[in-house]
Amino acid sequence: MSIIVLGTVALDTVKTPSGSRKEMLGGSASHFSMSARLFTNVNLVAIIGEDFPKQHIDFLRRKGVILTSLIKEKGRTFRWEGEYKGDLNTALTLDTQLGVLSAFRPRIAEHQKNIKHIFLANVDPDIQSHLLANMRNPRLVGLDSMNYWIKHQKKSLLRLLKKVDIYVANDAEARELSGESNLIQAAKRLRSFGPKMVVIKKGEHGVIFYCDKFIFSLPGYPVAKVVDPTGAGDTFAGGFMGYLAKADKVNEPNIRKALAYAAVIASFNVEGFGLDTTARLTMDKVNKRLNAFKRCIRF
Amino acid sequence: MSIIVLGTVALDTVKTPSGSRKEMLGGSASHFSMSARLFTNVNLVAIIGEDFPKQHIDFLRRKGVILTSLIKEKGRTFRWEGEYKGDLNTALTLDTQLGVLSAFRPRIAEHQKNIKHIFLANVDPDIQSHLLANMRNPRLVGLDSMNYWIKHQKKSLLRLLKKVDIYVANDAEARELSGESNLIQAAKRLRSFGPKMVVIKKGEHGVIFYCDKFIFSLPGYPVAKVVDPTGAGDTFAGGFMGYLAKADKVNEPNIRKALAYAAVIASFNVEGFGLDTTARLTMDKVNKRLNAFKRCIRF
Repeated sequence: MSIIVLGTVALDTVKTPSGSRKEMLGGSASHFSMSARLFTNVNLVAIIGEDFPKQHIDFLRRKGVILTSLIKEKGRTFRWEGEYKGDLNTALTLDTQLGVLSAFRPRIAEHQKNIKHIFLANVDPDIQSHLLANMRNPRLVGLDSMNYWIKHQKKSLLRLLKKVDIYVANDAEARELSGESNLIQAAKRLRSFGPKMVVIKKGEHGVIFYCDKFIFSLPGYPVAKVVDPTGAGDTFAGGFMGYLAKADKVNEPNIRKALAYAAVIASFNVEGFGLDTTARLTMDKVNKRLNAFKRCIRF
Repeated sequence: MSIIVLGTVALDTVKTPSGSRKEMLGGSASHFSMSARLFTNVNLVAIIGEDFPKQHIDFLRRKGVILTSLIKEKGRTFRWEGEYKGDLNTALTLDTQLGVLSAFRPRIAEHQKNIKHIFLANVDPDIQSHLLANMRNPRLVGLDSMNYWIKHQKKSLLRLLKKVDIYVANDAEARELSGESNLIQAAKRLRSFGPKMVVIKKGEHGVIFYCDKFIFSLPGYPVAKVVDPTGAGDTFAGGFMGYLAKADKVNEPNIRKALAYAAVIASFNVEGFGLDTTARLTMDKVNKRLNAFKRCIRF
């Protein structure tokens, strides 16, 4: 099974207590792809500007990411600049330059419209809806968003939520959109907005999964040195959706396994800058840490 | 095996989004006892004033708590008043009246000096040291503290840490005392201060346990309605130390089981005001939730 992901391909400038990097390859679709590629063929849908370095394209292609629908337009690539301090749990955004992203309308190849597994990573909900409307036979649709859209495009977001199977949010977004401070209540409320499954990511504290049949919870995999958490949430989503696309059947054991893989791959992501660690991952490394994780939480 | 706990017996006035209560029975030793009693005989060491309601004494005795060393002195009982808002993760202290606590010097009965399992709940580190110095044959000593002592009595606290086996802290305290923002690094640093085992409580996010041989981590048990989190940390410590006292042998499987029990009993504590829910607990209820917890995190 293959998967299609709509999101951003960006140039990230990041400063953390471990150092800094200038204009690395980043963006939600890049991080998602680098994780999901471990399980399935990933079709990336995003936009870049004329200034986008060829080496990044070569890199993504080398990693097996299908770039048929990565559009290049006149203008500058989307850039994000951020800094992490202290416990590295929240990024301080220093600068955002939308560039070509501000006029992004996804265009995908005809054959891609038949892909059944779809992830709408964080972009304008109207762009997400536009892509979804083009898909002919969606079987499993996941959605991510962010506080900006919750605040400024709430109606579009709520409309879109009715059409997706899985809503993936971090704890702050879940609380904001649901209006509930307790995360179990928040998940229930988000469930009532449409999606059958709700995934609440809690950064270093792990994840809560909610559906009508069961609640699943995991702590974060213990990471002794966080270098750069940028993209951890997208990496998580990539592992989760990627595993489900490979497993094909969306049942309880597969959902649990998918979330555990997601947590493990995200734990690698934060150990290096940008895509440094996830680009080097093999399933062997991932499975070793998955087993260590299993032992870690066993009682 | 029995256990001895040094701490506070207090009158708590609490306001939370679920309502408010005036001068309930509270304090670290009370919460610890209500949890540890499920596994072992609990000897409580604390001080109360002349104004302490007899009904609370009767209640503790009825619950099997051994009150031989609960001293009554002239003056008022220690009182704490606090409020919780929003996500209920942190208490806003509105008022603290030390009363008799300010001149507390624990006195214990001769036969209690032979108890091997000891927990020094949060009071002045010098008082904790004083009690510990009186114990003849400590086998397993646990210690809790708080930000106030870390700030104002750091030397005493560090001296005491060399003499205990287990340090139990919440995440903020662990970060403050260790100077490390990453919790695994914080645990390692705290380990280097003396205690062979470090337990970092993360409230709704669960717990991290660290020793030289292994790291254990659990999410919080998913609680859909937090009524009053007061005493959850002491309840956690009571379950943990109580189980280890009963199990007698401090090995890896017992430590893991003790922490899981601790998390489960603490999850009951937050579902009611004060000691409301933990006072009514039976091992049957606890074991049912322990099994549900096991299923919840399984993958």
